[in-house]
Amino acid sequence: MIPLRTIGIVGGGQLALMMAEAASRIGLEVEVLAARSDDPAARIVPRTSIGDPGDPSALRDLAGRCEVVTFDHEMVDPTVLGDLESEGFVLRPGARAMAVAVDKERQLEVFGRLGLPVPATTVARSLDEVRIAIDAVGGTAVLKVAIGGYDGRGVLLGATAESATEWMPDRPVAVLVQPEMDIDAEIAVQVVRGADGDMVVYPVVRTVQRDGMCAVVQVPSRLDPEIERAAVDMARSVADEIDVVGVLAVEFFIVDGALLLNEIAARPHNSGHITMESSRTSQFENHLRAVAGHPLGSTELVVPAAAMVNVVGSSRTGGGYGILPADVAVHLYGKRPRPGRKLGHVTATAVTLEDATERALRAARTLENGASTS
Amino acid sequence: MIPLRTIGIVGGGQLALMMAEAASRIGLEVEVLAARSDDPAARIVPRTSIGDPGDPSALRDLAGRCEVVTFDHEMVDPTVLGDLESEGFVLRPGARAMAVAVDKERQLEVFGRLGLPVPATTVARSLDEVRIAIDAVGGTAVLKVAIGGYDGRGVLLGATAESATEWMPDRPVAVLVQPEMDIDAEIAVQVVRGADGDMVVYPVVRTVQRDGMCAVVQVPSRLDPEIERAAVDMARSVADEIDVVGVLAVEFFIVDGALLLNEIAARPHNSGHITMESSRTSQFENHLRAVAGHPLGSTELVVPAAAMVNVVGSSRTGGGYGILPADVAVHLYGKRPRPGRKLGHVTATAVTLEDATERALRAARTLENGASTS
Repeated sequence: MIPLRTIGIVGGGQLALMMAEAASRIGLEVEVLAARSDDPAARIVPRTSIGDPGDPSALRDLAGRCEVVTFDHEMVDPTVLGDLESEGFVLRPGARAMAVAVDKERQLEVFGRLGLPVPATTVARSLDEVRIAIDAVGGTAVLKVAIGGYDGRGVLLGATAESATEWMPDRPVAVLVQPEMDIDAEIAVQVVRGADGDMVVYPVVRTVQRDGMCAVVQVPSRLDPEIERAAVDMARSVADEIDVVGVLAVEFFIVDGALLLNEIAARPHNSGHITMESSRTSQFENHLRAVAGHPLGSTELVVPAAAMVNVVGSSRTGGGYGILPADVAVHLYGKRPRPGRKLGHVTATAVTLEDATERALRAARTLENGASTS
Repeated sequence: MIPLRTIGIVGGGQLALMMAEAASRIGLEVEVLAARSDDPAARIVPRTSIGDPGDPSALRDLAGRCEVVTFDHEMVDPTVLGDLESEGFVLRPGARAMAVAVDKERQLEVFGRLGLPVPATTVARSLDEVRIAIDAVGGTAVLKVAIGGYDGRGVLLGATAESATEWMPDRPVAVLVQPEMDIDAEIAVQVVRGADGDMVVYPVVRTVQRDGMCAVVQVPSRLDPEIERAAVDMARSVADEIDVVGVLAVEFFIVDGALLLNEIAARPHNSGHITMESSRTSQFENHLRAVAGHPLGSTELVVPAAAMVNVVGSSRTGGGYGILPADVAVHLYGKRPRPGRKLGHVTATAVTLEDATERALRAARTLENGASTS
């Protein structure tokens, strides 16, 4: 198998940016289809074109200029991707995997087919059905749009019939209704799968969510090794089932000591940013290795403990984000600060998880509170 | 002190490329003045302009568009840099440090002023003087042009009166004539110095030269800690003396168990590429932190042992460099292969130095022998 050299990335966000950084290191060429000229990846990808990822002709143009196409986000139409594949373009992950990745309802179908444990879920297709389902689980529930939600958008915690009415999207979309659960912990597993079916798996991470956004990630997870092994097995079976190529991030809840599969993303994921410092090969490099057809890099942990914390904009965040802290790895995406917007992340590595977490939290706060320098 | 955001880099080689990769991560903006449009840094720096770094107006244009200017190489005229500083432009390192860095004769003067040990050296200014100096050390010597040599160019080992005649550059240039020495080992120290005089120092590395080019770098150096301490002290005193801002790489010979200062470079250096995987903060990020006025990052070693090996083009090297090895960190610069040309480097980290070195050597050979994929 001769490796591919030119990779088109649909989307110009921070995942595309960090893929482009990895591509630069290992000598691969990337081209980006970004929505806006100030998207993060445009900073370092001279060959950035601006266009709507929902526009078939923009996707076809990108695919025509590259040997393989991959994705920074799920805002694409799987039908269009299927058309591109029939025309002979190479997409990794392919249209079939993307069709599952973009749709939480199809994810549940896949998990069910594999007999994997999931939260009790009703799929509602109208406000009436949503209200009935909320009622059925005791009057409050968690709502998630099946398609198009991210970073807390498209999710309503503690939903009642009343708040659901206000929240309900205008567009017709399936809504997953789940009972509120007492969650012991949340974990994530990153699997990387090559076009030849070869797989490597990163050490399980523990994730802490805040406002529906992944806020803190820690490795090692310090969970029962049996639970970790079970999570890894489930993640691998999903990756095989949907025939993914590249990174598959699989998120789990632990409720009453048992694993429940939450959702997947068929791309590098916020819960895997920590791999840039914690593992021998980052999720971004391994995604590109898989997509380009190179041997997958080692996922071995290279530090005793690491913690990643997102840098999120607040009303205090300055345009330059202030002084760079010295005791963590800093990753800033070059985004204009806005309250609630992910601007970057920091990762601290240390001998103990407590030390790493404390340093990462402090560094993130420093950057978030930084005086404006621009 | 408010950190600077926009950094102009003179030169578009692999050092500029790796600075740009680091700048992308930490959210700094870089602009590059490259000699050619296919220079490595142009791959990821959309704001690359093409021009001659020896052209004062090209330098002035770059300086006018950026808050601070730094350097990928020494092919600049210190007089021009002095003029730019008098006009109010910020250069880091400044004209005074660059005047020393570009000229091995001035380096010897600085080392002498500090009372530091150097190889016995005669500075010859004509072929006649070179031949007399070779004679004086027994008929064979090492010759080095004082200005403009790099990667084995501008150096003649085992020079005789005869070979010197053929080798002597046409341009008028001072030539350092040194006796051939029985070198026990070569080491290098990377110092990073901020504009405020704050300094951090990387662990001492051992370097193995081949054809005048740094071929293998190893950390730890496994030398007597006394020798290491002395080397670090000398490196720090040189950094202070020339008032460098950014990375200063200081190279030493060890002859009969004693240190001799060889030469310096006032920029990230091949002997410091290993820091990307071996230390908490890479030399490239720390160079930018110093240049932009941020606190310097930790240079702490994060692995037990590491080895870096350059990937050098040969007649067998294909345009795509073949399959990426899986067990090392790969850095490829996107340069067209030519025999003898540095195309990239690999770094292996391991528990033992032997294991790291063996893996890095094997991976570099794999890439050098890779079948063409383009």
